[in-house]
Amino acid sequence: MSASSSAPLRVALLGCGVVGSSVARLLVEHSGDLAARIGAPFELVGIAVRRLGRDRSDVPVDPSLFTTDAAALVSRADIVVEVIGGIEPTRDLLLSAMASGASVVSANKALLAEDGPTLYAASDRHGVDLYYEAAVAGAIPILRPIRDSLAGDRITKVIGIVNGTTNFVLDKMDSTGAGFAETVEVAQSLGYAEADPTADVEGFDAAAKAAILASLAFHTRVDIHQVHREGITEVTAADIAAADEMGAVVKLLAICERVSRPEGEAVSVRVHPAMIPRTHPLGSVRDAFNAVFVEADAAGELMFYGRGAGGDPTASAILGDVVEVARHRVNGGRGAGESAYADLPVLPMGAASTRYHISLDVADRPGVLAAVAATFAEHDVSIETVRQRPGAPGESGDDEAAGATLVVVTHRAPDAALSATVEALGALDTVREVVSVMRVEGE
Amino acid sequence: MSASSSAPLRVALLGCGVVGSSVARLLVEHSGDLAARIGAPFELVGIAVRRLGRDRSDVPVDPSLFTTDAAALVSRADIVVEVIGGIEPTRDLLLSAMASGASVVSANKALLAEDGPTLYAASDRHGVDLYYEAAVAGAIPILRPIRDSLAGDRITKVIGIVNGTTNFVLDKMDSTGAGFAETVEVAQSLGYAEADPTADVEGFDAAAKAAILASLAFHTRVDIHQVHREGITEVTAADIAAADEMGAVVKLLAICERVSRPEGEAVSVRVHPAMIPRTHPLGSVRDAFNAVFVEADAAGELMFYGRGAGGDPTASAILGDVVEVARHRVNGGRGAGESAYADLPVLPMGAASTRYHISLDVADRPGVLAAVAATFAEHDVSIETVRQRPGAPGESGDDEAAGATLVVVTHRAPDAALSATVEALGALDTVREVVSVMRVEGE
Repeated sequence: MSASSSAPLRVALLGCGVVGSSVARLLVEHSGDLAARIGAPFELVGIAVRRLGRDRSDVPVDPSLFTTDAAALVSRADIVVEVIGGIEPTRDLLLSAMASGASVVSANKALLAEDGPTLYAASDRHGVDLYYEAAVAGAIPILRPIRDSLAGDRITKVIGIVNGTTNFVLDKMDSTGAGFAETVEVAQSLGYAEADPTADVEGFDAAAKAAILASLAFHTRVDIHQVHREGITEVTAADIAAADEMGAVVKLLAICERVSRPEGEAVSVRVHPAMIPRTHPLGSVRDAFNAVFVEADAAGELMFYGRGAGGDPTASAILGDVVEVARHRVNGGRGAGESAYADLPVLPMGAASTRYHISLDVADRPGVLAAVAATFAEHDVSIETVRQRPGAPGESGDDEAAGATLVVVTHRAPDAALSATVEALGALDTVREVVSVMRVEGE
Repeated sequence: MSASSSAPLRVALLGCGVVGSSVARLLVEHSGDLAARIGAPFELVGIAVRRLGRDRSDVPVDPSLFTTDAAALVSRADIVVEVIGGIEPTRDLLLSAMASGASVVSANKALLAEDGPTLYAASDRHGVDLYYEAAVAGAIPILRPIRDSLAGDRITKVIGIVNGTTNFVLDKMDSTGAGFAETVEVAQSLGYAEADPTADVEGFDAAAKAAILASLAFHTRVDIHQVHREGITEVTAADIAAADEMGAVVKLLAICERVSRPEGEAVSVRVHPAMIPRTHPLGSVRDAFNAVFVEADAAGELMFYGRGAGGDPTASAILGDVVEVARHRVNGGRGAGESAYADLPVLPMGAASTRYHISLDVADRPGVLAAVAATFAEHDVSIETVRQRPGAPGESGDDEAAGATLVVVTHRAPDAALSATVEALGALDTVREVVSVMRVEGE
């Protein structure tokens, strides 16, 4: 078989945490299959770790492969697999790996979203591959479909549930009626949320993934600082109940949208919680699963669904990249590099076109609806539906006059106009409280 | 830009029906984007059609590009896009295209499932690409994820809803309660079924796709003649109602399964209707949509969802292949060729492990259940649930004694044992009729 006639490909692994040890184990377990699929055997030449001496008996490799000298390791590899994360020293290591001729497979969404172009430029300069399927949505093949399968189409929208922790929390809030804080505790106790859940619940993780998805989908550089970001910490049980009443669920969405304007196309990239109909393909994504919904001119609606995190699922995506990069080593060629030719402007959040669901506690007297409707009209925001219900949801001991609840769902409007409308509503003396404000997606 | 400095890539299009005219239109409309993504412009050098002189004003190309001489056309192309279909003369044309150095993008599932290895060998021999994403599940990127993204994993199962016509028919039967024949007429009137729907409703189309999926997933040659095939023509409204009672729907499934046996691994590849839980990701695939569910050791469960047919969706998949093949022309390299190293045996249907849902009209007297249960036991088939209900579903004018309905769902067993059980049940004198037999998937 040709596999044995080629020189072995030297693979270096940087990092040996949950994902790294899965990668090492699968490389060993599947070595025969991988060699047959690549057309050459490979050799694991080292695993860079922070400290030696830890018990790593779950990683079935010769213990002498562990090293703390990552810089020396990358200089003697054909393929460098990076699962350390973080910005530095990782960036330096990857740049030096590529400079010495190695192809890189990385799961580092933070680095790619912060400073991808530096890495892409290095990969072009040195003629090596830089693959990072595992950086977005774990095991789900999503970057390769966007970059390659849809390369002949025009993508108009990508909406992803790309953070498993927040989907788990929101799904549990939906099924139990519990609040945010107690549900996060449950998620922590089950291992679905970190002790410090900030990166997940504040949307930083999803924002990095949104930047990567938008860059690929729109052939435009988008970095994490251009992504509008709102987390789920302020989502209340009342918001979830309000969504349920209109047949919707609340999800943390990473939204990448192509926007047509008279002055030319632009893109909007944002992460925020939103209500989405239960009948939408993303509406039934439960637990910690991820899914990415894509709309393209010719293809229509597509959805990709699977596990977004965890050692083995992430390792699956990494090994797929390793095989493809290795095939290029054996057969020649390179994968597609960065494509940023379209160079579309990234809109500020205020210019994004969104819909709002607004729930108001109002005084129950004539003229209230007229005042509310006038406020929307003043801001050029068109109302889709209004529902009025006697009895405010406030405390029963309330000593004010009887109230009513007014639920308004708008048509699409610039986010700035919607946000100004909410502010103006709050100032109306007939509005006792703005109970809940949430965007609506997926019409 | 580098796009303009490279020589144009010559693209020949074979066929100009629904899909072909979408391909031509999108090639023209997106030519600027495609050139930027490829790194070189391309030139449409001709469109082979059966007859000249037809009105093709919907295809925005110079009419002089149409030709009936397909053989001459392929000899002057770098990339040949084939959407003619059928076995001959298509096979000869593609072989001659590859022999003259052209890469091929084809949507021809029948040819690939009938005689793929001849084409794969030609592509290897001449060092050209052979891509066919559009052959399975239309716009859904599924072959590339299986071939590349999951190349480092071990796929254990692929279950696809890969025929839009049958999914439309079964979904309508489910939502309306109507029978097969009248629903096919509705599908025909709406353009979802051909005047002669045989290829779809008898499962030939799905079987070709199953062969292609299994070949890629298991690195094993599987041709259409090795695929067990049952269509949906015998699915009744009673079957659909029986599925509904257990929270399931009936779908025509293309099932590709890796089977572990003491004597070594094997694969089972089959197309048949089956009940699947409504809560399964495939259970909510409505209308003419397609979806492919994949299980792999490390990745876990994945699903890919989208439009499986139609001019533009199919053209989207074709153009994605064209861009990738063109990138290889510009940057060097080739995509992965055929991978059949695993060479696993393909099991006959009788050896496949399945579950049955059996509905029996029985005499309502003591001892019936015991006789039925004994019949299952004699065939080593284990029962999961039995539900007994007085009152047979037969005509009210029935002059026999009162009957009862017995619904049995089995555990997994060899299909041959299940099928022999059903035959033996039919011969019991306490069983008046075997009302419905259907396999169950997706536990």
